[in-house]
Amino acid sequence: MRLPIILINYKVYDNSFGNKAIELAKKIEKISREYSVEIILAVPATMIYRISQEVNLPIYAQHVDPVPLGAHTGAIPPELVKDAGAKGTLINHSEKRIRADEIDDILKRIRNLGLESVLCVDRYELVFPFGLLKPNAILIEPPELIGTGISVSKAKPEVITKAVDEIKKAKGVYLIAGAGISTGEDVFKAIELGAQGIGVASAVMKAKEPEKVVEDFVINALKAMGKF
Amino acid sequence: MRLPIILINYKVYDNSFGNKAIELAKKIEKISREYSVEIILAVPATMIYRISQEVNLPIYAQHVDPVPLGAHTGAIPPELVKDAGAKGTLINHSEKRIRADEIDDILKRIRNLGLESVLCVDRYELVFPFGLLKPNAILIEPPELIGTGISVSKAKPEVITKAVDEIKKAKGVYLIAGAGISTGEDVFKAIELGAQGIGVASAVMKAKEPEKVVEDFVINALKAMGKF
Amino acid sequence: MRLPIILINYKVYDNSFGNKAIELAKKIEKISREYSVEIILAVPATMIYRISQEVNLPIYAQHVDPVPLGAHTGAIPPELVKDAGAKGTLINHSEKRIRADEIDDILKRIRNLGLESVLCVDRYELVFPFGLLKPNAILIEPPELIGTGISVSKAKPEVITKAVDEIKKAKGVYLIAGAGISTGEDVFKAIELGAQGIGVASAVMKAKEPEKVVEDFVINALKAMGKF
Amino acid sequence: MRLPIILINYKVYDNSFGNKAIELAKKIEKISREYSVEIILAVPATMIYRISQEVNLPIYAQHVDPVPLGAHTGAIPPELVKDAGAKGTLINHSEKRIRADEIDDILKRIRNLGLESVLCVDRYELVFPFGLLKPNAILIEPPELIGTGISVSKAKPEVITKAVDEIKKAKGVYLIAGAGISTGEDVFKAIELGAQGIGVASAVMKAKEPEKVVEDFVINALKAMGKF
Repeated sequence: MRLPIILINYKVYDNSFGNKAIELAKKIEKISREYSVEIILAVPATMIYRISQEVNLPIYAQHVDPVPLGAHTGAIPPELVKDAGAKGTLINHSEKRIRADEIDDILKRIRNLGLESVLCVDRYELVFPFGLLKPNAILIEPPELIGTGISVSKAKPEVITKAVDEIKKAKGVYLIAGAGISTGEDVFKAIELGAQGIGVASAVMKAKEPEKVVEDFVINALKAMGKF
Repeated sequence: MRLPIILINYKVYDNSFGNKAIELAKKIEKISREYSVEIILAVPATMIYRISQEVNLPIYAQHVDPVPLGAHTGAIPPELVKDAGAKGTLINHSEKRIRADEIDDILKRIRNLGLESVLCVDRYELVFPFGLLKPNAILIEPPELIGTGISVSKAKPEVITKAVDEIKKAKGVYLIAGAGISTGEDVFKAIELGAQGIGVASAVMKAKEPEKVVEDFVINALKAMGKF
Repeated sequence: MRLPIILINYKVYDNSFGNKAIELAKKIEKISREYSVEIILAVPATMIYRISQEVNLPIYAQHVDPVPLGAHTGAIPPELVKDAGAKGTLINHSEKRIRADEIDDILKRIRNLGLESVLCVDRYELVFPFGLLKPNAILIEPPELIGTGISVSKAKPEVITKAVDEIKKAKGVYLIAGAGISTGEDVFKAIELGAQGIGVASAVMKAKEPEKVVEDFVINALKAMGKF
Repeated sequence: MRLPIILINYKVYDNSFGNKAIELAKKIEKISREYSVEIILAVPATMIYRISQEVNLPIYAQHVDPVPLGAHTGAIPPELVKDAGAKGTLINHSEKRIRADEIDDILKRIRNLGLESVLCVDRYELVFPFGLLKPNAILIEPPELIGTGISVSKAKPEVITKAVDEIKKAKGVYLIAGAGISTGEDVFKAIELGAQGIGVASAVMKAKEPEKVVEDFVINALKAMGKF
């Protein structure tokens, strides 16, 4: 992972799949190239292959199932998303929680597969405990702010600063801040508070001109890191 | 759906994804063409697009999530599998059960999308109740036989005959028999007992020469229907 | 079950347990005796024994787990609620849904144990399918109205009338209407529309004088049945 | 909690409820008194009140639901088990897992209620992470040994020794070893390896003379602690 981390969660909006999703990915790829910034796209399982084929960005799965290969109809074990072209995966998103033992299992497996991991938590109290399980990054998102447009940076800055304190105890794990981030200022603030990057979904996916939003976020992330 | 119904559930074995999965699909397509028989392949979500692009067979999802489009990270609503090329989907497989209200919701939605549905049940007592919800077909599989190689046709023929009685009360819904089906004889027997087709997974996916198994099943299904 | 069916779901409010819960049960018992009406109380698992000991009313569990006796830490199989004094149980409440195969399993088991069952559904489309599984009664509650104070009788009378049509196809199963019922008029209307009784929770549990609410409901239920 | 910790999980066997369960509790109480050892009984929710009334032992719930008081039919929030007489509760048993955020929520609540907590984990890797959430004790049980009669002390002593190393990092949290413990020797070994106590279920509940098994365990636990 390169800093700043910009992670866009496609979720399953009506532009998260099909040609619209690919066009959006191409626009984001252009910004990534222009600013030399890595932008991670977490896309639906059905779209991993197509988007991976079309753009040169790190494509993530939104979820993988903590089951081995075998008789598990409907499951998506990590081997399948890797085969489809994913470079990593979200784990334990607030809309797809799994148990702690499953998190430990899946982290061990995806490390063996050479996949990256962004582990989601809803509170700073879990940052160090889950940091001990060694994901590549932890994305902290107070669920009550997700999708609201009220950013964690403004409404709950202490969640970020406490998480920053916690993540330091777990060496080698990045901290990403998310939930409600909707302006360049929110992005700047999150990184200024100590996060290594930001996670967004609705602010991009529901925007009229998503590429402008992404560009604004990228510029502010770079500024906050002193790279712009 | 054309009779006899031959449904192959890829599940998530190590040959269920990647190039192996596509090669297998191509071999099965050849048999389908040779015998003019429709063969349904239920494949992992990550593979729906690729396999749909490569072969001319009805491709099914193994599962769809009963959530609307929107903020549902990691979910796979039916719109996404349709967009990827699926013609239908399994619902409520014993390895991915959902609730009755979710089944009703999802059936209404996939009908609107023009997708086909094969609804799985584990007992004859649920055939008529679920038949009332109007899936295209009901696949009955006693879970204790799934993957055992001991076929429902031989070990529990009364499950099929009772299910046949029940399905008649729900007009216009097909009955598919599954669980442990591993020989051509099992296939013949299931259809002879009144099923309109058969569902298999391990017998094909774990075979050394899966195409021979499929061919044997197809021949026996046609014989049982008096078409061979 | 005697008609009209008056079912009060205690849920887990702060007066649903401890001495407050027992005092409330005693007040309700008095009304039951005065009007010769059976009033079912569905109480928390921890309170079944105590309330059963204190009052002469049919006490129900709010839920039972579809697991056999054995190594199931934290589960409450039906044998335990019977032993504690329950006469029956709710099944599949919208706040505690289980799967259709589990519903069928649990109904068979509680019939063997001589317990009564009230199976909850959220839509009329499931009334006949679940009626086929032969619970003693089906409680229909559109979940969007639960706890709102906007009653199904007024806001969605067609849910009741359609459910009444459906329940007739399943011989010998009663229909109970619920969700948002908060006045005597709501009760009267529900029964007038064809329900054999009503289910309530918040209207009683959150009332300042719950016993007056219950009395009003009982009088209106009797009136609607022509017994008052 | 007093050392050594002896925790007996009643689960839901046929002697886990009703008069048999009370008689067993009384026999265990006698041993507790005779040897001045605290013995925790984790009993089904329906039995907490009755057993608490009958014996002077710390009675635990086997599970509490991570939901607030209110409209949660069928749930058992911690307030209810406290009211019924419980002194503490198991959390996250392998037969009743909850998520990490729910574990943190429930631990905060039960601390406020003055209840004790024994948090279950299946692997040493989770001992320190969950120790950071400050339960009173962590019970480590490799699930593949639960109920087998093959004890963790003998079959996987390294699980205990590694867990002992991990628990030291989380100050003030006890370690209890469980899974397959069936002889006094197993108990002795577990404590000798560094555990502060042991958890058992089937070895007691399925024994012909459970009181003899308990006495043997108590003696060996005391010996291992140098108190006998």
